Amino acid sequence: MDLRDICLTMRQEIDELEKIVHANLSSTVPFVENVVGYVIHNGGKRLRPILTLITSKLSGYQGRASLEIGAAIEFMHTASLLHDDVIDSAPMRRGRETTNRKWGNQVSVLVGDFFYCRAMDILVRHGDTKVLRVVTDAVTILTEGEILEITKSNDFQTTQEDYLRIITGKTASLIGAACQCGAILGGVSEEFEHSLKRFGLNLGIAFQLVDDVLDYTAAVEEFGKVNGTDLREGKLTLPLILAISRSTEKDRSIIRKALITDNTSPKEFVEVLRIVEECEGIRDTIKMARGYVDRATLGLASFKPSLEKETLQRIADYVISRKM
Amino acid sequence: MDLRDICLTMRQEIDELEKIVHANLSSTVPFVENVVGYVIHNGGKRLRPILTLITSKLSGYQGRASLEIGAAIEFMHTASLLHDDVIDSAPMRRGRETTNRKWGNQVSVLVGDFFYCRAMDILVRHGDTKVLRVVTDAVTILTEGEILEITKSNDFQTTQEDYLRIITGKTASLIGAACQCGAILGGVSEEFEHSLKRFGLNLGIAFQLVDDVLDYTAAVEEFGKVNGTDLREGKLTLPLILAISRSTEKDRSIIRKALITDNTSPKEFVEVLRIVEECEGIRDTIKMARGYVDRATLGLASFKPSLEKETLQRIADYVISRKM
Repeated sequence: MDLRDICLTMRQEIDELEKIVHANLSSTVPFVENVVGYVIHNGGKRLRPILTLITSKLSGYQGRASLEIGAAIEFMHTASLLHDDVIDSAPMRRGRETTNRKWGNQVSVLVGDFFYCRAMDILVRHGDTKVLRVVTDAVTILTEGEILEITKSNDFQTTQEDYLRIITGKTASLIGAACQCGAILGGVSEEFEHSLKRFGLNLGIAFQLVDDVLDYTAAVEEFGKVNGTDLREGKLTLPLILAISRSTEKDRSIIRKALITDNTSPKEFVEVLRIVEECEGIRDTIKMARGYVDRATLGLASFKPSLEKETLQRIADYVISRKM
Repeated sequence: MDLRDICLTMRQEIDELEKIVHANLSSTVPFVENVVGYVIHNGGKRLRPILTLITSKLSGYQGRASLEIGAAIEFMHTASLLHDDVIDSAPMRRGRETTNRKWGNQVSVLVGDFFYCRAMDILVRHGDTKVLRVVTDAVTILTEGEILEITKSNDFQTTQEDYLRIITGKTASLIGAACQCGAILGGVSEEFEHSLKRFGLNLGIAFQLVDDVLDYTAAVEEFGKVNGTDLREGKLTLPLILAISRSTEKDRSIIRKALITDNTSPKEFVEVLRIVEECEGIRDTIKMARGYVDRATLGLASFKPSLEKETLQRIADYVISRKM
């Protein structure tokens, strides 16, 4: 079950969203349009704009601005992925070559900047200062989270708290903003706005926890990422942090070696995965993700039953059960 | 004579600008503050915020917002330099190691993003949609100009028109926006606003023309850049474009070789410089820069005499005569 199946009743609006996405990406430089076309067709789930759409409807909004603002948030997300590709020299994303590998670092950085500009363009045109503020703040926190992640790279002392701060920044903040913008469009009370923001933040944390599990467990065909990318890049995600704190001195030195080696071999990866699983690093990360999904849905309790509320709950379940 | 000497009468406001720059760069991540501190002390001329300050005064504005908006534009400029460093793998800028060389591509990209966020934060807080629109549009054009430049890299067919389009985008657009924002703050007529924007655009083109001359002629101690950076990076700037169109087949093949070689030797650089000078590539580029400066100052004719008008004229002269 993928995200579009869950949102079948909103199919027409999601088609409309795709049109808006494309309509906002024209450029006077033909090469830009080529790259941008490649990037935006790169199979994104459109999780963030779909959340803006649903939360706006849940908040009583009926206009088109939710799709525009959702597209802007998707562009911010795309920009951060492009800049992240430079950082990681990641060879694949979602089963395709990254822009970085295809056209080089230069293009990834600048086309990322182009997406930022396009996003700002939409938000400025919409003209709601509160929406502008919420998105700008979220992107600042996102950026700080990514920088914090770099400073903790290969750091064996990384704690669970460091990790949660990093993923709250790099993933949850923008998902929280996507939901908060829906609430702002609907003009709901501050309390409801805050509830929807919290929903997005908790959902985002769960989403990243599952992502980090899949980086260890998913086969490359399924997840579109070479297995063990995080380990290879020296990223200490929760499965590994738990393993480090729970394993024997001998196993810890195996992890340490795999983490600092430039090219972790498949054999080394399998060895680390064994340790992570023995220490229940995978199981407990999923458990924690489930906890955040529960918090997310609990936060919706004050909203009266509706199709939108139900869809948000199903998205929360999808975040836990997804295989890619 | 440097820019601050020219603006002596505005010394207090320029000191105030520095305070605003620093006050807007705090971060919850200590490492971000370290890098940002290094970057912003990197000896920038503050040309753009100074232009916003002067054009706002010329337009009758007396508040503090010109300094805030100027700082935001300076941050946009800083972000683009940081992203440009990733692109060029430039080892030095303004006589110091680049952020890229010091902390790696990852940090350059993300700290660049941080500067963009800070800039947007200021502009959103200020809340003037027209200013937001002008700056956002300028940054889009800047980004497209930089991408166009990459696509023309090493391209022997690059024309003078291509080159002018590139530098209008990557340099002049934001300088034009800096001046236009000053006019907007002063609430002048559309005609005057347009005049000040044109002043900035023409000044910006002249500025980049001189920059591209200095890349060939300035000694490293003076300009803070290793001589011949553009040649080494395969950038065809006007001095070289003129030389290619005017030189013999033999000299053209020397240029071609130097352009595509990975590590141009000092000897090769000196050889190319000889050809460029023989073809009067330097002289005619300076001539063109002077033409743009003349257009810039002519465009001020409709403004009545004032200290600010005089200062703008002196800045235009400085752009031509500067040695770094």
